[in-house]
Amino acid sequence: MATTIPYKIYLEENEMPKSWYNLRADMKNKPAPLLNPGTHQPMTAEELAPVFCEELVKQELDNDTAFIEIPEEIRSFYKMYRPSPLVRAYCLEEKLQTPAKIYYKFEGNNTSGSHKLNSAIAQAYYAKKQGLKGVTTETGAGQWGTALSMACSYFGLDCKVYMVKVSYEQKPFRREVMRVYGASVTPSPSETTNIGKKMLADFPGTNGSLGCAISEAVEVATSTEGYRYVLGSVLNQVLLHQSVIGLETKAAFDKYGIKPDMIIGCAGGGSNLGGLIAPFMGEKLRGEADYEIIAVEPRSCPSFTRGTYAYDFCDTGMVCPLAKMYTLGSGFMPAPNHAGGLRYHGMSSTLSQLYADGYMTARSVAQTDVFAAAEEFARVEGILPAPESSHAIKVAIDEAKKCRETGEEKTIVFGLTGTGYFDMYAYEQFHDGKMEDYIPSDEEIAASVAGLPQV
Amino acid sequence: MATTIPYKIYLEENEMPKSWYNLRADMKNKPAPLLNPGTHQPMTAEELAPVFCEELVKQELDNDTAFIEIPEEIRSFYKMYRPSPLVRAYCLEEKLQTPAKIYYKFEGNNTSGSHKLNSAIAQAYYAKKQGLKGVTTETGAGQWGTALSMACSYFGLDCKVYMVKVSYEQKPFRREVMRVYGASVTPSPSETTNIGKKMLADFPGTNGSLGCAISEAVEVATSTEGYRYVLGSVLNQVLLHQSVIGLETKAAFDKYGIKPDMIIGCAGGGSNLGGLIAPFMGEKLRGEADYEIIAVEPRSCPSFTRGTYAYDFCDTGMVCPLAKMYTLGSGFMPAPNHAGGLRYHGMSSTLSQLYADGYMTARSVAQTDVFAAAEEFARVEGILPAPESSHAIKVAIDEAKKCRETGEEKTIVFGLTGTGYFDMYAYEQFHDGKMEDYIPSDEEIAASVAGLPQV
Repeated sequence: MATTIPYKIYLEENEMPKSWYNLRADMKNKPAPLLNPGTHQPMTAEELAPVFCEELVKQELDNDTAFIEIPEEIRSFYKMYRPSPLVRAYCLEEKLQTPAKIYYKFEGNNTSGSHKLNSAIAQAYYAKKQGLKGVTTETGAGQWGTALSMACSYFGLDCKVYMVKVSYEQKPFRREVMRVYGASVTPSPSETTNIGKKMLADFPGTNGSLGCAISEAVEVATSTEGYRYVLGSVLNQVLLHQSVIGLETKAAFDKYGIKPDMIIGCAGGGSNLGGLIAPFMGEKLRGEADYEIIAVEPRSCPSFTRGTYAYDFCDTGMVCPLAKMYTLGSGFMPAPNHAGGLRYHGMSSTLSQLYADGYMTARSVAQTDVFAAAEEFARVEGILPAPESSHAIKVAIDEAKKCRETGEEKTIVFGLTGTGYFDMYAYEQFHDGKMEDYIPSDEEIAASVAGLPQV
Repeated sequence: MATTIPYKIYLEENEMPKSWYNLRADMKNKPAPLLNPGTHQPMTAEELAPVFCEELVKQELDNDTAFIEIPEEIRSFYKMYRPSPLVRAYCLEEKLQTPAKIYYKFEGNNTSGSHKLNSAIAQAYYAKKQGLKGVTTETGAGQWGTALSMACSYFGLDCKVYMVKVSYEQKPFRREVMRVYGASVTPSPSETTNIGKKMLADFPGTNGSLGCAISEAVEVATSTEGYRYVLGSVLNQVLLHQSVIGLETKAAFDKYGIKPDMIIGCAGGGSNLGGLIAPFMGEKLRGEADYEIIAVEPRSCPSFTRGTYAYDFCDTGMVCPLAKMYTLGSGFMPAPNHAGGLRYHGMSSTLSQLYADGYMTARSVAQTDVFAAAEEFARVEGILPAPESSHAIKVAIDEAKKCRETGEEKTIVFGLTGTGYFDMYAYEQFHDGKMEDYIPSDEEIAASVAGLPQV
């Protein structure tokens, strides 16, 4: 007799993960190291220390320790909004008339509106532990900035957010949430940094860019006593913290003896996907189980599906270390789609290596198809998804429809990374038929990757 | 040895309530009946049938049945977003350095952002069951309209929402959420109804009002084949559905052998408060237990604390039945505070009777104090609360501080009805020091209640 699966599987508090899982420990081909942009030698802990907290540098460089204990203070914070539910999408299944069993891990039930909080609280904790006064960061769409503001508020750290100017002006409510949590939010470029001043002088009236905001945040962190810079995706440390998503997902499945066939996640810098798949990929790497793993990216910013696997700058300003990754070139300007969290030219080095080694596949999807899937999902499952998350929804629905054709009873799980409450302008564009699908030309991508650094 | 109380108490699916609890069954003094505005005789089921669904009319008039089974279809929907967590506010307790134990029942983890969905899905279900094509309603701040849109989408019902014009224009994102769920949203007053046309002719350029939007929605419902009108608060039927909040709260407490001393809820029309307190008040009415129960209302719209207990119209247009309630007069125009859900001139008849009989107390609080409490709460508990919910937070914090003085270890529970994601403009006003506290004068209230109907 099969146990009936509830709509939502919640772990008990004492079943929550006590350690993060470091996927790199099980990789035969380790992700390529960060390189010093000047010497092209692997970055050392000493070189990284002025930018990042000590403990986070350790985590960034640690390719060997499989399990890293989650400090008690972070676990306490996790308990305020975790465990997140693993939801059985019964209503979506019925709507699609599919024999597939669809699950999603929902990370949106916290005020930051996304999974970003999982790493924000860890990074704030280590900053506090090191005795720092505060941290700096950049934010585009605003989810990461919000998450970091919440985390800093909790530990009494100062939080300086550089928000891309166009987002600052178009998303005043995101900015206001950060203010509730006591963060200072500065539109970038700004007069508060040298690089900001230069940008304003060179490009008067510029809307700003994520690349410039990163550069400003790094400049402030490295030039202000007691501050460090923190980042919400791409880095190994972030994937480590986000492994809590996958660990909870796997524990919830294990409680009911379920083994998913397919794991789907949206991918911008890779923080959510890397976290969701971590323990499953671990089993796959160790040859203990097999899973079909699919990264979904916007057609307008297709780093996995159309990028080049090479060393590149992580930021447009070219002040950060070089990372080997699937990249469209650090000068690539993604079209203004509505999934700000996926508009990144590169990809996590760890995921890039796994993709290069054939452990996962990737697909790119068009924006209007994504919003159609989002709306279909919202109407039956109740949750209004973030545009980023909806990339995964789109592919999950596609796969469930395939099962309807073939009769296969696949178990599909996808990451529902967040909610779309601050993205209603995008939904409005969609409803009013004003949404466009941007697809970069081959020439555009070729021109951009032609500028990759010679390593 | 005391059991350790987790941060969040979740019921299992099979522990969720299978029946709603009808508080009226245990009241010795029943709430006064609705009266026909023409004859001043109690409204009959026949008279109510053109406006409301048959089953809902039954529930509205049933003062005797204590438990009414929740239909299986509604329970399935509840499982998508319920049980809601009963949260132990450990971080708030620590921040306040209070010996009080603070809990809150959090109803904001669904896309409508509030508890309104609990009744919306019930009302949509009965409309569907009766074979109707659709329902009409009004919405001010937009939470109820959103909840009803979601519910109608689930059951494939048409949903026509009349949204107060000023909200329609100032809250385009709320409107857009409703569109995601397929509702038609019309700014009120509109050209689609006779009363709307009259309002537009008499008051060109009017911003609209909740009273007018109700009248338009009722006109469309009663003049369109296959439609009925639905309402999100005030009515007995709504309190019945919302009892799911209190039943879950009590079940969660019972699991850990906890008996709260004090129950606090915000009160506009009474839907949340009436639901939260239902089973506790039942025990109190039956003499089985005692609880201190506190309604919190805005100082700008103080129906309990400064209103008159008398028959009044439920709407400004005076087309609805008369209800006996604490009222400021149906012509009372509450100042434009930022808790739209609490800007109602009257109060649930059931709660009014209980208040008159001394089973509960009430307090009014100033808006700026409410937002200060909201921010204090958000920073330690993570959740960004709705302005409405923050009224309860304010009094819970006040009471916890009293415990700090007296050393009492009171167990306090309050209703956290929803999230404030669509209220960031209000938070901005607060941060920028532009928020005002409106207090109606004695003369203003006296003039308004002078116009009460003679019954």
